[in-house]
Amino acid sequence: MKHIRWDKDRESRTGVPEVVFGPGKTAAHLRDLFENTDELRIASRLSEEQMNVLRDVATIHAEPRMAVRNPRAMRNIPPVPVITAGTADIPVALEAATTLEAMGVPTETHFDVGVAGIHRLQSVLPELAVARVCIVVAGMDGALPAVVAGLLRAPVIGVPTSVGTGVAQGGLVALNTMLASCSPGVAVVNIDNGFGAACVALKILGTETPD
Amino acid sequence: MKHIRWDKDRESRTGVPEVVFGPGKTAAHLRDLFENTDELRIASRLSEEQMNVLRDVATIHAEPRMAVRNPRAMRNIPPVPVITAGTADIPVALEAATTLEAMGVPTETHFDVGVAGIHRLQSVLPELAVARVCIVVAGMDGALPAVVAGLLRAPVIGVPTSVGTGVAQGGLVALNTMLASCSPGVAVVNIDNGFGAACVALKILGTETPD
Amino acid sequence: MKHIRWDKDRESRTGVPEVVFGPGKTAAHLRDLFENTDELRIASRLSEEQMNVLRDVATIHAEPRMAVRNPRAMRNIPPVPVITAGTADIPVALEAATTLEAMGVPTETHFDVGVAGIHRLQSVLPELAVARVCIVVAGMDGALPAVVAGLLRAPVIGVPTSVGTGVAQGGLVALNTMLASCSPGVAVVNIDNGFGAACVALKILGTETPD
Amino acid sequence: MKHIRWDKDRESRTGVPEVVFGPGKTAAHLRDLFENTDELRIASRLSEEQMNVLRDVATIHAEPRMAVRNPRAMRNIPPVPVITAGTADIPVALEAATTLEAMGVPTETHFDVGVAGIHRLQSVLPELAVARVCIVVAGMDGALPAVVAGLLRAPVIGVPTSVGTGVAQGGLVALNTMLASCSPGVAVVNIDNGFGAACVALKILGTETPD
Amino acid sequence: MKHIRWDKDRESRTGVPEVVFGPGKTAAHLRDLFENTDELRIASRLSEEQMNVLRDVATIHAEPRMAVRNPRAMRNIPPVPVITAGTADIPVALEAATTLEAMGVPTETHFDVGVAGIHRLQSVLPELAVARVCIVVAGMDGALPAVVAGLLRAPVIGVPTSVGTGVAQGGLVALNTMLASCSPGVAVVNIDNGFGAACVALKILGTETPD
Amino acid sequence: MKHIRWDKDRESRTGVPEVVFGPGKTAAHLRDLFENTDELRIASRLSEEQMNVLRDVATIHAEPRMAVRNPRAMRNIPPVPVITAGTADIPVALEAATTLEAMGVPTETHFDVGVAGIHRLQSVLPELAVARVCIVVAGMDGALPAVVAGLLRAPVIGVPTSVGTGVAQGGLVALNTMLASCSPGVAVVNIDNGFGAACVALKILGTETPD
Amino acid sequence: MKHIRWDKDRESRTGVPEVVFGPGKTAAHLRDLFENTDELRIASRLSEEQMNVLRDVATIHAEPRMAVRNPRAMRNIPPVPVITAGTADIPVALEAATTLEAMGVPTETHFDVGVAGIHRLQSVLPELAVARVCIVVAGMDGALPAVVAGLLRAPVIGVPTSVGTGVAQGGLVALNTMLASCSPGVAVVNIDNGFGAACVALKILGTETPD
Amino acid sequence: MKHIRWDKDRESRTGVPEVVFGPGKTAAHLRDLFENTDELRIASRLSEEQMNVLRDVATIHAEPRMAVRNPRAMRNIPPVPVITAGTADIPVALEAATTLEAMGVPTETHFDVGVAGIHRLQSVLPELAVARVCIVVAGMDGALPAVVAGLLRAPVIGVPTSVGTGVAQGGLVALNTMLASCSPGVAVVNIDNGFGAACVALKILGTETPD
Repeated sequence: MKHIRWDKDRESRTGVPEVVFGPGKTAAHLRDLFENTDELRIASRLSEEQMNVLRDVATIHAEPRMAVRNPRAMRNIPPVPVITAGTADIPVALEAATTLEAMGVPTETHFDVGVAGIHRLQSVLPELAVARVCIVVAGMDGALPAVVAGLLRAPVIGVPTSVGTGVAQGGLVALNTMLASCSPGVAVVNIDNGFGAACVALKILGTETPD
Repeated sequence: MKHIRWDKDRESRTGVPEVVFGPGKTAAHLRDLFENTDELRIASRLSEEQMNVLRDVATIHAEPRMAVRNPRAMRNIPPVPVITAGTADIPVALEAATTLEAMGVPTETHFDVGVAGIHRLQSVLPELAVARVCIVVAGMDGALPAVVAGLLRAPVIGVPTSVGTGVAQGGLVALNTMLASCSPGVAVVNIDNGFGAACVALKILGTETPD
Repeated sequence: MKHIRWDKDRESRTGVPEVVFGPGKTAAHLRDLFENTDELRIASRLSEEQMNVLRDVATIHAEPRMAVRNPRAMRNIPPVPVITAGTADIPVALEAATTLEAMGVPTETHFDVGVAGIHRLQSVLPELAVARVCIVVAGMDGALPAVVAGLLRAPVIGVPTSVGTGVAQGGLVALNTMLASCSPGVAVVNIDNGFGAACVALKILGTETPD
Repeated sequence: MKHIRWDKDRESRTGVPEVVFGPGKTAAHLRDLFENTDELRIASRLSEEQMNVLRDVATIHAEPRMAVRNPRAMRNIPPVPVITAGTADIPVALEAATTLEAMGVPTETHFDVGVAGIHRLQSVLPELAVARVCIVVAGMDGALPAVVAGLLRAPVIGVPTSVGTGVAQGGLVALNTMLASCSPGVAVVNIDNGFGAACVALKILGTETPD
Repeated sequence: MKHIRWDKDRESRTGVPEVVFGPGKTAAHLRDLFENTDELRIASRLSEEQMNVLRDVATIHAEPRMAVRNPRAMRNIPPVPVITAGTADIPVALEAATTLEAMGVPTETHFDVGVAGIHRLQSVLPELAVARVCIVVAGMDGALPAVVAGLLRAPVIGVPTSVGTGVAQGGLVALNTMLASCSPGVAVVNIDNGFGAACVALKILGTETPD
Repeated sequence: MKHIRWDKDRESRTGVPEVVFGPGKTAAHLRDLFENTDELRIASRLSEEQMNVLRDVATIHAEPRMAVRNPRAMRNIPPVPVITAGTADIPVALEAATTLEAMGVPTETHFDVGVAGIHRLQSVLPELAVARVCIVVAGMDGALPAVVAGLLRAPVIGVPTSVGTGVAQGGLVALNTMLASCSPGVAVVNIDNGFGAACVALKILGTETPD
Repeated sequence: MKHIRWDKDRESRTGVPEVVFGPGKTAAHLRDLFENTDELRIASRLSEEQMNVLRDVATIHAEPRMAVRNPRAMRNIPPVPVITAGTADIPVALEAATTLEAMGVPTETHFDVGVAGIHRLQSVLPELAVARVCIVVAGMDGALPAVVAGLLRAPVIGVPTSVGTGVAQGGLVALNTMLASCSPGVAVVNIDNGFGAACVALKILGTETPD
Repeated sequence: MKHIRWDKDRESRTGVPEVVFGPGKTAAHLRDLFENTDELRIASRLSEEQMNVLRDVATIHAEPRMAVRNPRAMRNIPPVPVITAGTADIPVALEAATTLEAMGVPTETHFDVGVAGIHRLQSVLPELAVARVCIVVAGMDGALPAVVAGLLRAPVIGVPTSVGTGVAQGGLVALNTMLASCSPGVAVVNIDNGFGAACVALKILGTETPD
């Protein structure tokens, strides 16, 4: 039975290559996709076992549980800032950053700058000021993107994370806070969807610099 | 049929007097409670008609839809700051402020200092620094109490408001954001419950200054 | 009592000017903001009465219930497509388009191209292909942004609308469908938030063409 | 204690035979139902252990976790298309297909034709055009049944799956998208209920061709 | 501005004609669609005013708030039973029945046969036994379709209604009960969607009797 | 630290003895409560390990995971019927029946009589007709209590169970169906709360036969 | 079209007579049911207009919006206590009390004894001690039934009301609090369902005193 | 990569020291924070393994899963009462008490005084009467804080717990009951957030006794 229809021209059509979503993929299938190819390959949400399967045919990024083969050459453009409110949001932020870097887009990360100590954000503001798009990752109360968007010219892509306790469990509170943001200029992707945020950033940058 | 059991000793027992909740009360009943008494009387959530019924026997506060008769003498203590994120949150903030003032507690209000322009908050910070308790009222994303609590020594009582559009409609987003606050020291009351926030503030102050 | 703190430098700071949100604003206050100024003024979510108040000092856009005074000069860039799935989504789409045009960004609208008759979308695809950002407005099942994003290089800003019957009432279904989109490159704003989508588009364009 | 009341005449009454739902059934009980009978037996949602218990008395279908004994002779009617949006939806699709085939109804499966690449759907359209009923299985955004229903004469039975991340977790988003479908002619069954979809298809076919 | 794209070939493509959804349509627009045409026209969810606008150019069905012009000739097939649990569900049932009859499909209605008095259902069972498809409309607990499906060979299309008090308000309880039905062979459409149920029935019948 | 306050006179005050809720209780604590006492002891929701701890000092009921020591003498009253819709609901039904029997109330169980085959219920109706109270346990669509209540003089205590797939997962659908029941005379307890249903039945019987 | 099937033998079958639910009934229909009959007639949820229609043929109870004709003779049994937490819960309590009295069951009401002043409850405890069943009506936090059930031998029927502000709006909080009650012996009916509570009480009493 | 930004002056700024939230922290990181320091260190939500890592450098509190190093000297103020409704709520209560004691605030605990036996609460009332702030922890129905607040002058900080079965699972019911409390003077923190309750108490006490 032929289960998968690889969408070969997705990148030429949409500017975003097809990516391998790990859950449910067999070892054989994963190796089949990554071996003996000189095309870009990105896999996400890999289990420990799946990362081991790909370790000799791809670069493994353990924190965001990704594998990359044949990354694009790094473009000469200003880095995309990827910011987190807490330390538990880091794997999601790294899924965004790793995807962007695999696509040739430089990134710079700023972690643990949440609103409980707003001065921490202010110390990184100068670096954010030159960004063309900014990815802000936050769980719990999800308040960070609103504050950042009130200080920047760049669009803010908010990524809610499922990190959270009590009412914040699962990320719905962070998601809704971002959607209800009083600061105009925040657009939101699905909970924990670092990959999706990277795709939006990629499309924003791509419209500007045809390659 | 005797419908109401007035809880006479509530104030001596709990430090908070019984208050008349407007909805469903008849004109006759309201006048009966407010006329010919030299006790403190506070009514909240009054309709336009109910405010007219009480206009000659009480001071009417139209924005928070309240009536007060025989307010307590103003205590000589620092004012309680009552802050709002937006202008639509003001009626709820005034319900809190009016209740406190009726009970003899001075207040100072700071409206429209939401996180979309965080510098507005910073301009009022010095006045907040001396507060013993601070009431922060916010709808939409409800992010303000977390930011304030990260900057103050006083406990913050968060009051979510039902003001909001889209996912924020009804106040649940603001409520959850406050509960999930990353800044320790925020306690929350029910949506739109300015009166409840005032009661908590009153009890906090009362434990400190026996009258 | 001074209720409002006008955030004067919001545009220089964030690229998006402060906008007047209609609900709760008095006639006096609205005229005060719109009369005798040569700055850009945009008001949204106006009632019939509020539109009448501003009719002689601003251009009234009745369908999206907005008022604009001193719009920016139109920039010489490709128009931003604003697409709707159904006819009931049009007022939200026009809130986005009117905001963009007031800011000097040309738009082109394509209405009623929902997925029930996918050929209708295909007829407008060539015009979408050159866009740098695309706004897609949909209520009910909210499936349109996913389909569009699978066909375009530009980032898609999804705007769910509260239009809908049964489970779709209020827009939460459309919102969640857009967030769960299988097509990478969709970012979402709050339900009915045409203005917010325009702000994100503005920031995306602005990073590209400094003015 | 006699725990189970086998509904012997269910098929003659309703056109659908009683089926064994695996969870909670003991090995002894399962064998008791499958051994030494020449009646049709179908079991679903079997654990690995339960499948092993039945391996010598029934045909085991590992992907949809089912067991079938004494399937009906295949009827000479056009196959029922069973379509999935993604690869993770396949087990649910196979629960539907296996049930239908056990009942003597031929099926044809088309996997991974989701709306992110709408051209994949178009390539299978001719085969769908002759169907008398079509089963469409989708998780995540659940947008596929609406698109299919806008292109076909046959009724579409939508089966939402619990496959999904973030807001789509558990299948409620896919379910609601299908219910809110703008394309008339979609009817929906419970999340992951491939068996239920097969029963509806069976009843639709059955009214037409008495056997 | 051209707001509507009439989907002319929808019926030839899908077996279901485009229908006019009343809310938001102007009087001029409605008359434009209904006047001087010899094609079938169906409008639903009409207001009192909209029904008056169409009264001289269409047959008005006041209970389901519909208008029909140029109905199809009645087909010579067994009637489709349309059943309700309570009397308040009748308008939704009539939306289904009126749509079917406009399309040339005879119907027979059985109202107020809910499970609180199960004997009432049994009295109409013989008439249901010959049906090829059965529409069951229920609000409150939504239990009727499960009971009917356990007694019939025909597929049951469940239509939950928003009729209900307390937890049942809005129809979500009825919807979920139908989806969770223990009786196989129930497929469900959106809350109050009598029109959608008729379309599914139409497609089921159509596959059987090509016209 | 003294963690537990045993409510000794609960039975004399309320007619229901205090019961030991298993989760979180240590082996030492459980033995302490069950050893060397001639008072009635009932424990519920026990783990496998906890049942082993009590095996020599109490009667273990493995299916409902309970332990009973010193049950009351059986009263000479008609048995309380405890009915389930499916087989998966049996453990909850047995929690109710075991509690009642420990308290000296005879019970009779009827399992798997759900509405998918309504004739199964009719076969047990004569036995139900003489009951003074009836406990009906159902998961999935939860439709059984409504049907039973429409046929009996006795009050029906509905017990929703967390058994269910898709939307029915966790029992909320069954709970709401029971609350929305169109048949008057159904009262409901918490999901899976067989013990609670027994307590209500006990109090109903107790008012009638003082012991 | 014959819309209603009057369930004539409901009372003999279930002990509860069929009752007329007001919403949607026409004046003609209501008079038809109440005029020229010597059977018991009860109507509930009547509008102001509907009460006027029945004023000369039935006793009108304005607070619970009911009409009663030919009430049963009062039985010589102890009254059923009907208790409310607040004054806004009274109409629901009176729906229960009026239904019981129409059926010949005496009641005694105790209003406004909520847990904010627990001493008020204690003053009515002696009267409750002799009850055979007790109806407790509460909105907002819904905490009263749990407290009452911890003090009484009689079963408690909890009736949550839709009275409430903020999170308590609509009655779901009160409902869930009652279901989660730590005091065994509370059974719950739908939100605002005073009539349903009366039916349960009637069935409880009826099993005890055959008439 | 530098993941964590320690907020050194948080205590001087807000009166509450930064605390180590266990989940996700590596052994190396934890030891790094606790070894060789004479500053106060508090860690919460530790796993068994994490507690072992810190056992030789901190005092381990196993029930609330915390570690404390260099606790503050105990202040000479009346103890803060920490009350629970049930025994399962104790770990959350101890998280609050341990945090307070680490900060030098004496506490006194009263466990298992829930509303099912209200007399148990009354026996501890005298001790509560002198408190300046009171922490009340409750899962299931969450009714205890309302009852306590109706009896005390001190503000009540309600802590809902995730302990609960059926509808109460996860703590949302307890949370909402507390927010909807009819007794004024209850403020609420997130589910299971004993630490957050301690912080609010600390700030309330701190405003009163400058150190």
